[in-house]
Amino acid sequence: MVALDRPTLRLNPNQGRRLRAGTPWVYSNEIAMQPEYRQFPPGGLVAIEGDDGTRFGTFMFNPHSLIAARRLDRDPAAMIDADWLRGRLREAIALRERVCDTPFHRLVHAEGDRLPGLIVDRYDDVAVVQANSAGMDLLTPLLVEAITALLPLRAVVARNDSPARRQEGLAENVALLVGEDARAEVTEGGVRFPIDPLGGQKTGWFFDQRPNRDRVAALAHGARVLDVFSHVGAFGLRCASSGAREVTLIDSSAPALAQAEAAATSNGLAGRMQIRRGDAFDTLAALTGERFDLVICDPPAFAPSRKDADAGLRAYGRMARLAAPLVAPGGFLFVASCSHHAPLEAWSAQIAQGLHRARREGRIVFTGGAGPDHPVHPHLPETAYLKAQLIQLL
Amino acid sequence: MVALDRPTLRLNPNQGRRLRAGTPWVYSNEIAMQPEYRQFPPGGLVAIEGDDGTRFGTFMFNPHSLIAARRLDRDPAAMIDADWLRGRLREAIALRERVCDTPFHRLVHAEGDRLPGLIVDRYDDVAVVQANSAGMDLLTPLLVEAITALLPLRAVVARNDSPARRQEGLAENVALLVGEDARAEVTEGGVRFPIDPLGGQKTGWFFDQRPNRDRVAALAHGARVLDVFSHVGAFGLRCASSGAREVTLIDSSAPALAQAEAAATSNGLAGRMQIRRGDAFDTLAALTGERFDLVICDPPAFAPSRKDADAGLRAYGRMARLAAPLVAPGGFLFVASCSHHAPLEAWSAQIAQGLHRARREGRIVFTGGAGPDHPVHPHLPETAYLKAQLIQLL
Repeated sequence: MVALDRPTLRLNPNQGRRLRAGTPWVYSNEIAMQPEYRQFPPGGLVAIEGDDGTRFGTFMFNPHSLIAARRLDRDPAAMIDADWLRGRLREAIALRERVCDTPFHRLVHAEGDRLPGLIVDRYDDVAVVQANSAGMDLLTPLLVEAITALLPLRAVVARNDSPARRQEGLAENVALLVGEDARAEVTEGGVRFPIDPLGGQKTGWFFDQRPNRDRVAALAHGARVLDVFSHVGAFGLRCASSGAREVTLIDSSAPALAQAEAAATSNGLAGRMQIRRGDAFDTLAALTGERFDLVICDPPAFAPSRKDADAGLRAYGRMARLAAPLVAPGGFLFVASCSHHAPLEAWSAQIAQGLHRARREGRIVFTGGAGPDHPVHPHLPETAYLKAQLIQLL
Repeated sequence: MVALDRPTLRLNPNQGRRLRAGTPWVYSNEIAMQPEYRQFPPGGLVAIEGDDGTRFGTFMFNPHSLIAARRLDRDPAAMIDADWLRGRLREAIALRERVCDTPFHRLVHAEGDRLPGLIVDRYDDVAVVQANSAGMDLLTPLLVEAITALLPLRAVVARNDSPARRQEGLAENVALLVGEDARAEVTEGGVRFPIDPLGGQKTGWFFDQRPNRDRVAALAHGARVLDVFSHVGAFGLRCASSGAREVTLIDSSAPALAQAEAAATSNGLAGRMQIRRGDAFDTLAALTGERFDLVICDPPAFAPSRKDADAGLRAYGRMARLAAPLVAPGGFLFVASCSHHAPLEAWSAQIAQGLHRARREGRIVFTGGAGPDHPVHPHLPETAYLKAQLIQLL
């Protein structure tokens, strides 16, 4: 990829305000789109300049995407090769060495690590790569070269089946890129959990909630715990491992609960864990009269897209209204949202309303998001999708 | 205080939407103000009902305050006595027993602990009380009775000299209420710091930043650290204690720096700490060319009131622009705001803009606020005044 071959796209007149302010994205309507641009290979490298000639750097360009260009480098002539990727990866690794205490974490968090659309999760010596932009799809071979040069990896997997990929017009692609066996195990707070990155389901251990699991597990000793929308039971397993008296997991997915059950057994926690399959809302309603010291509600995204935003927000309120009565006085409710279209203020107002409708008073002990292995680009605060609150009910 | 003697105030027609939704405050324009209400003693107890007869509970009423009534209890006939206060305090203590690992913390956080306007900080066996509402001023003797019955306190101090008090029309009042000597010592992360709650200055150890100090100190080993707006040097002392190579404190207050210097000496950290008096903005500008591994900017409120909001927000941006060039590549910038009138989104946009103007890229590793000993009422999210970001610069 020689910089001299790189086409230069121009912005429309008076566009580029966000770029000038520091945002690394260009929307398609900001570009003075020429017919030939439409023929550019999705994800190819371009330089972008303003109609006044200001040069904004090197971008990956996808003519079929709403976010048409994503900045890789402020230098319009930057060579984007394995060396360049090694530099970015070194920075990503260096951050995790400072803020993570185990080799189980998100190693690359897309724009937060100046690698637009690229996600890499690390399970010690196994890396799982998601390329959510056409450009990162093209760069994957170079990335594999760079990452295996920097870390002692036994296996690298491409796990390209996210909704974000479909929005970019990219095909699904799940493959073992390096190594012979990608199966791995997460160790977190005393719990061991098997990971199969090539399995039929996506990896069930979400690193973004790691600090929140620490926070919740610290309250679990001796507690009766309800983990609704438990998925594979990460919160519940951590609570049981931290000395919870009794943990009930509820989820609608039989395969997720089967993984939870296997992990409960292999961690010697099965005696204190109950696993119930069912619709979370129905089960919350059916549990009326029960009291738990700790109730965890970490649902799938209720507002994954803009059109779902209102209904999704209301669903969080309904969840809080149904969960609050199950919390013993002095107990804790943990709620989270991974919806991109549920801004913190509106979301927490819904949670507050849910508590009020349940006629419960409470106090927010913690509000926050993902851990430090999920860094956020300063000009893209909206990409910090995870919100969480820990609320003590009175 | 007999509930039967309690006057009942009515809301204006169609008012009470926020009360009905769960907010514990009533603004003066919401109340159907009768001439005699103006004569009520500030802080006296009232019941409040809607024009439809809905009863909202027991409130403290101050006819001279914009927030005219603050809810104490949902029961309109609740007896507000030492027993009642003991109940609320028990809840406050129980929370801290769950989430704090030392007896140095905020013990009562006003509405977050359902004690409107009341702040109590605990320095082991010394409690420092601030009554920021007329009602809590009246209740202070009962409060002292209740708190000394629950905790083994050697001294209780009233430290009533906050701006919030002036807004309520209350006089300043700093007094030793219980005991003979209120001097105490905070121990935090290996640092010991003397506290004199009756001293000329306010207590310089702010508990709200405790978890942020933990976070920053964890990055300090071997680092060259700059602590701007250092006040008594809490961040810098923690960094030095955590193995920083060199810590520079900058503040404009000679008395604050004198306390910092004494603490550096008594903690055996003076050899690695430099203390410089000066205007923070000027000093940041004058340090051009220097590089630090960690720069901390925890200024006093730039936007304490609504009229300062715009200028205050811009000051945070200027601060970030001046601080960013001093951070070594791969180093960290910690910024905070204790302004009530700097909402997170607008504030973090200013920080991002400051970095961009300094031509530095970065990634936000942490966004958050005060620790769990500063609980927030679910319907008063705006009272969570403290915002903080930890940003790695590249």
